Amino acid sequence: MKLLAVGTVAYDAIETPFGKTDKILGGAATYIGLAAAKLGAEVNIVSVIGGDFKSDYIEVFHKNSIGIEGVKKIEDGKTFFWSGKYHIDMNNRDTLITELNVLENFEPQIPDSQKNSEIVMLGNLHPAIQLSVLAQMSVKPKLVILDTMDFWMNTAWDSLLQIISKVDVITINDAEARQLSGEYSLVKAAKKIQTMGPKVVIIKKGEHGALLFSENKVFFAPALPLEDVFDPTGAGDTFAGGFAGYLTQTADLSYDNMKKAIIVGSALASFTVEKFGTDKLQNLSSTEFENRLTEFKNLTDYNYRF
Amino acid sequence: MKLLAVGTVAYDAIETPFGKTDKILGGAATYIGLAAAKLGAEVNIVSVIGGDFKSDYIEVFHKNSIGIEGVKKIEDGKTFFWSGKYHIDMNNRDTLITELNVLENFEPQIPDSQKNSEIVMLGNLHPAIQLSVLAQMSVKPKLVILDTMDFWMNTAWDSLLQIISKVDVITINDAEARQLSGEYSLVKAAKKIQTMGPKVVIIKKGEHGALLFSENKVFFAPALPLEDVFDPTGAGDTFAGGFAGYLTQTADLSYDNMKKAIIVGSALASFTVEKFGTDKLQNLSSTEFENRLTEFKNLTDYNYRF
Repeated sequence: MKLLAVGTVAYDAIETPFGKTDKILGGAATYIGLAAAKLGAEVNIVSVIGGDFKSDYIEVFHKNSIGIEGVKKIEDGKTFFWSGKYHIDMNNRDTLITELNVLENFEPQIPDSQKNSEIVMLGNLHPAIQLSVLAQMSVKPKLVILDTMDFWMNTAWDSLLQIISKVDVITINDAEARQLSGEYSLVKAAKKIQTMGPKVVIIKKGEHGALLFSENKVFFAPALPLEDVFDPTGAGDTFAGGFAGYLTQTADLSYDNMKKAIIVGSALASFTVEKFGTDKLQNLSSTEFENRLTEFKNLTDYNYRF
Repeated sequence: MKLLAVGTVAYDAIETPFGKTDKILGGAATYIGLAAAKLGAEVNIVSVIGGDFKSDYIEVFHKNSIGIEGVKKIEDGKTFFWSGKYHIDMNNRDTLITELNVLENFEPQIPDSQKNSEIVMLGNLHPAIQLSVLAQMSVKPKLVILDTMDFWMNTAWDSLLQIISKVDVITINDAEARQLSGEYSLVKAAKKIQTMGPKVVIIKKGEHGALLFSENKVFFAPALPLEDVFDPTGAGDTFAGGFAGYLTQTADLSYDNMKKAIIVGSALASFTVEKFGTDKLQNLSSTEFENRLTEFKNLTDYNYRF
């Protein structure tokens, strides 16, 4: 199988209690692509960048075998720029600057050779853009995964509902699941969202892990308790990219494999937060990754005979 | 082994978004005792009640084989009374009324036959009272478990540190762990608390589960995602009572058994929150309990081969 991921490629400037960065490589498609590629999945990203985008960063995609044929470069435009500041609890952040730049008129163009991708990951973007991606597919994907956020609930409700009705899996955080469903209980929220389209609902709870709802079943993936969360930027996208990438690489869309896929996503996300930006994800060794999967096993494994 | 639990026996009046109660049976020792007894553990509680304490409630202890020789009845006093109100998020509550009554001058008296109890559970009370319980033991217990709360950090810091230095296990919620340690990261907080005395630190995160830290190991027990949390009163005490009761009944204090014990505590607590007060816990069948343990297994169990 191959994975098509649409999303932002961005410059991020990040401030945390541990330090701050200049403009560094960021964006949902970047994290999704890196996470999926780390797992050996064939992944292509669709995005837009400006003439100011560093060739070193282009090299990051090439080095990691992430297809960027669908990344349009607008020479006289500037790359999307986001700047944010985290506080000690790391669950909340203040956006300091958002410069849409080339993202403002982004119309994704899926390369012909990718229009038959079996798995499509719709990174967080305007729902109309996400709809246009699905409309361009020449073969109905086996699995469409949607990421979205509260901003679109507040500004593009109708087209958000439309894209939600067309996807198989939605990833959303707990507060957003409550807003989308009007239900406080996450179990009820998931059930209601399942009636809106996606058979599978993944609710992200940040440092408290993630819940996977499928039919009447529920699975919980913990977040690894860390000494320090250095920079949470990109954790949600890494999680989604790890999930999508694992399903792609294993070509197995069963519930049992989805459970493994969200553990893989959680494990990769636990690396992303350990350094600024994509640093840790880019330099991750397979030994580090395997050891972390063992840590995840030890975190919840117990003798089931009582 | 046998378990000695000290704590309150109380009247609670509870208001939640789902309804409200008159004065009903409550208190830390009540929940701890019921949880431990449900597991077949030999458990005795030490507490104090007033002349107004209903004989029906005495019957609850007898029916569940909870020893109450150490529960002193002060005929001309009134039973400790707490009233509280929960809001929709159920993680926060407002205390409406606290009438200490007979608790004000509570001096626990451990019956001679219980001074050799192998496991001691110190329910949330003034640290000086918890110290006096330990001082009365004729044989050093194999395991002492402490529950406490922020109120004692603010009002009895020195004696709190003293009792913490004398226990093997502490159960504490996440905000309190941060306050006690001065560390935001729960991993760092647990490490610091381990240097204060307890080798085992259990951090309760309410609907987000609980973390068990022992030496350099960490285990995570999820909370069961529920359609409705009806009344969270007593959930923390049920959890602690289930933990202590399981260790007592199995007479196994190993780390591997502690992992099972916090799953058992979480499972029992998931029942407590389904109805007001002790209703669900009192009427729990063994089949319901076994099915819930299976639900817990399904919640985190996945195929570890990647």
